[in-house]
Amino acid sequence: MDTQTGHTLDREAFHVYDTTLRDGAQQEGLNLSVLDKLHIARAIDELGVGFIEGGWPGANPKDTEFFRRAREELDLRNAQLAAFGATRRAGVRAADDPLVAALRDSGATVVTLVAKSHDRHVELALRTTLEENLAMVRDTVSHLTTEGQRVFLDAEHFFDGYRDNRDYALEVLRTAAEAGAEVVALCDTNGGMLPDWVSDVVLDVLESTGARVGIHCHNDTGCAVANSLAAVKAGASHVQGTLNGYGERTGNADLVSVVANLELKLARPVLPSGSLREATRVAHAVAEVTNVPPSARQPYVGVSAFAHKAGLHASAIKVDPNLYQHMDPMDVGNDMRLLVSDMAGRASIELKGAELGFDLSGDKALVTRVTDRVKAMESRGYTFEAADASFELLLVEEVEGGRPAYFDIETWRVITDSRPSSEATSEATVKLRAGGDRIVTVGEGNGPVNALDHALRQAIGRAYPEVQKFELIDYKVRILDQGHGTDAITRVLIETSDGVSSWVTVGVGANVIEASWEALLDSMVFGLRRHGETPLGA
Amino acid sequence: MDTQTGHTLDREAFHVYDTTLRDGAQQEGLNLSVLDKLHIARAIDELGVGFIEGGWPGANPKDTEFFRRAREELDLRNAQLAAFGATRRAGVRAADDPLVAALRDSGATVVTLVAKSHDRHVELALRTTLEENLAMVRDTVSHLTTEGQRVFLDAEHFFDGYRDNRDYALEVLRTAAEAGAEVVALCDTNGGMLPDWVSDVVLDVLESTGARVGIHCHNDTGCAVANSLAAVKAGASHVQGTLNGYGERTGNADLVSVVANLELKLARPVLPSGSLREATRVAHAVAEVTNVPPSARQPYVGVSAFAHKAGLHASAIKVDPNLYQHMDPMDVGNDMRLLVSDMAGRASIELKGAELGFDLSGDKALVTRVTDRVKAMESRGYTFEAADASFELLLVEEVEGGRPAYFDIETWRVITDSRPSSEATSEATVKLRAGGDRIVTVGEGNGPVNALDHALRQAIGRAYPEVQKFELIDYKVRILDQGHGTDAITRVLIETSDGVSSWVTVGVGANVIEASWEALLDSMVFGLRRHGETPLGA
Repeated sequence: MDTQTGHTLDREAFHVYDTTLRDGAQQEGLNLSVLDKLHIARAIDELGVGFIEGGWPGANPKDTEFFRRAREELDLRNAQLAAFGATRRAGVRAADDPLVAALRDSGATVVTLVAKSHDRHVELALRTTLEENLAMVRDTVSHLTTEGQRVFLDAEHFFDGYRDNRDYALEVLRTAAEAGAEVVALCDTNGGMLPDWVSDVVLDVLESTGARVGIHCHNDTGCAVANSLAAVKAGASHVQGTLNGYGERTGNADLVSVVANLELKLARPVLPSGSLREATRVAHAVAEVTNVPPSARQPYVGVSAFAHKAGLHASAIKVDPNLYQHMDPMDVGNDMRLLVSDMAGRASIELKGAELGFDLSGDKALVTRVTDRVKAMESRGYTFEAADASFELLLVEEVEGGRPAYFDIETWRVITDSRPSSEATSEATVKLRAGGDRIVTVGEGNGPVNALDHALRQAIGRAYPEVQKFELIDYKVRILDQGHGTDAITRVLIETSDGVSSWVTVGVGANVIEASWEALLDSMVFGLRRHGETPLGA
Repeated sequence: MDTQTGHTLDREAFHVYDTTLRDGAQQEGLNLSVLDKLHIARAIDELGVGFIEGGWPGANPKDTEFFRRAREELDLRNAQLAAFGATRRAGVRAADDPLVAALRDSGATVVTLVAKSHDRHVELALRTTLEENLAMVRDTVSHLTTEGQRVFLDAEHFFDGYRDNRDYALEVLRTAAEAGAEVVALCDTNGGMLPDWVSDVVLDVLESTGARVGIHCHNDTGCAVANSLAAVKAGASHVQGTLNGYGERTGNADLVSVVANLELKLARPVLPSGSLREATRVAHAVAEVTNVPPSARQPYVGVSAFAHKAGLHASAIKVDPNLYQHMDPMDVGNDMRLLVSDMAGRASIELKGAELGFDLSGDKALVTRVTDRVKAMESRGYTFEAADASFELLLVEEVEGGRPAYFDIETWRVITDSRPSSEATSEATVKLRAGGDRIVTVGEGNGPVNALDHALRQAIGRAYPEVQKFELIDYKVRILDQGHGTDAITRVLIETSDGVSSWVTVGVGANVIEASWEALLDSMVFGLRRHGETPLGA
């Protein structure tokens, strides 16, 4: 089965299968909107995976909606979309089961059918007979393949089932493969496996069934990545996992770690050439959408993954960094960081500047100034990874000697009031000078930031009418220093659109309103600059 | 070497070696005081490990102080204390090296000597000859054993060194063992190994040197736990790791996962009987001291490690929980938790009720009412997965026919004002009736929620003084329907502590202040009910 040894990539020879949107979304506290899922699917597609499992259409209205919008809005360059769902109910024909129909009509090219392969689960959870379960598998796979979809089988609780009743577990796989399932993915649903055990079972399944084998691991023993690799070594040619290892309980196998190990450690290319270099960016972009703080210690893509307390080894690191790292961090789009070193960041600041059209290479003092300021601000909670617009304003300020001044804020205030039998309202007052006038405006809103945004745009809009085109399209709040209750530091990210493009700004502060206000101001200033407005005094 | 097969524990036959206080403390952002280290040592001792590495006396003043105080203040019941340090400098006798003297005089029964075993590191980092490095190993081990200490050797960069120059790497181990080192621990210092590679090297080392082999892994490939297990299977009988997987870059092998896998999966007792049941408590206690928020997804001890979105499976879980968990969570001192999610069904509501002490099994109409209400609220953005306290209040309301009424809110208001040259401030007014009085209070804060919390607690505190003990310890904001800018729905989760226990409440609304207010109110009501206060009218 292990046919992928060359260097040209045959995407079908080895399946990299992402289930962030379905199994990853089972993580405690993770709650994705349809829009979140569309954003995440686009990001994961950029990693070059072959398959993205989008959810369970028919069983979950949000997932039905996701597949509907995906058909219209998603233009995936690498991945095929897979719909997840169960075999037909007992005693009904697959063709007559509305849940099967929802899979068929989802528009997904692939359906991943979950089937019971553990006899006790058939009896206790499905409450049907072992024979009927086999019929359900056979009938559902046949129906969907006949109707033109590719079918993969997720054999749920396979490893536990194999221990309790090997013959039946294998029979489920054989039945699926004979009915036309391309892959039988062995699921360690409860996550209790260790690598050697996985390896033994995969070898037996390959020999006993001849089916193409996939692997789906959970991290309950801390071995999800190693278990996935053991399965691949034993001959599995389809591996499932999630971005950032999201998932129920201890999470699923972290897909980036699995893929990076295959490509970089085992010299087995499974993504399009160069795609792995997107891994760090994609993993962090997905974390921004889920709003689950990424783990600094995450293998390959964590911000600490290549961070060194350099003191002792600094000179040796300079001679040969590979003495102190297991691979080149650039291969996964990450960076070595020296924790006690003024060298940190300069190169990336220069690169980032060039990316935004500022050539900083000739001015070392300027680069130092910007680097120091970025480091100081990041230590206070700012992030410029996502907030390009705020970073560009910071650059402009250092390059041009000052921040573009379109208006002068005098004061602002926002009041939120309870109302006896309806929702609270917010009212903001903004006083500023713009275009030679002193302007005082009041804005109302269903929240304090909304009210401030209305008041501010009204005020600026007298001198610069184009701000009426600006629209806040995303607003994210993250509490940075948890454990201090409402005294914690708050980071706000705001995305603003002018209908043509959009930009992201950041604000930080103990007060969530003030942090939001800072991000709002950056957003207006950046937008006015982009629209070619001339600053007041500059 | 694998002599540990019986059920009586010979602590010397297999070494469980903790290096949280030394290698774990290398983690970015982790900074331990001497007092912290003493607390952590006591906690880890309760886990029953055989050895606790305390630090590097002589090289680090804090660690010298730790060993001094440990002699006087630490009364370890299980572990021996190990001092970590380097072989003597080149060209000096071990007996004359002040750093070796600091190890000798530390009072530790064990010294773990780190030695270079990778030829390039000897030349580039140590800047000495390969021969002199061997002499340094021989001389230092002999000196310390002659002076009465046990010596273990940490062979730094061993796996990379073995690849570059196998003969030399093995010669370092042989030299140490012949000079009296009890254990040669193979360190995957750069963390790039995979299980099969570790296994092959351990087998070769055992055969080539006859030394007792230990293993020290880092998690850069996401395989630290599996690598440690592979080494043990190949014959290593000494395993190093850290609590919560703390450590430089991606961290060290998580000692609890390694030990739990050995005991529960591989039936190999390595801790005193019953000690593993302390694992969850100890892991969380250590996290309290380090102030690094523990990962909910951590294998075995994470708060999510045995959490289930019960909806689909609740009825089967009732019949046999072991169908859905890979082991009994009690074996590591953890607990199964059922999450009330948007997949929630009647069975999981019943189970959840039982967990909270409400027997709902006899009242079908009640269960239907609660289930419907949970579903309706979840569709509006509420989540009860984390917010057990809000869920309990909802149950109380349905079971007892009304919500406990300790106070009547009349109105509230909060104003946030900019100030010219300093941070914005917030001021809240709360008007309510409690204990027969109408009370009006004003609270200030560095944010609107902070101000509301202060005003509310002041107002309620006149009738119920114990609310002064309540403290907000966590505050999370999540924007649910992104893409609508500041019009989005906001969900707030608040965790409150009374110094003894803590509880989580939820609020939802278009207005972030109103959502926070709702969660605050639930938090106060839940706390008063828990403290046995009698509601007003009920």
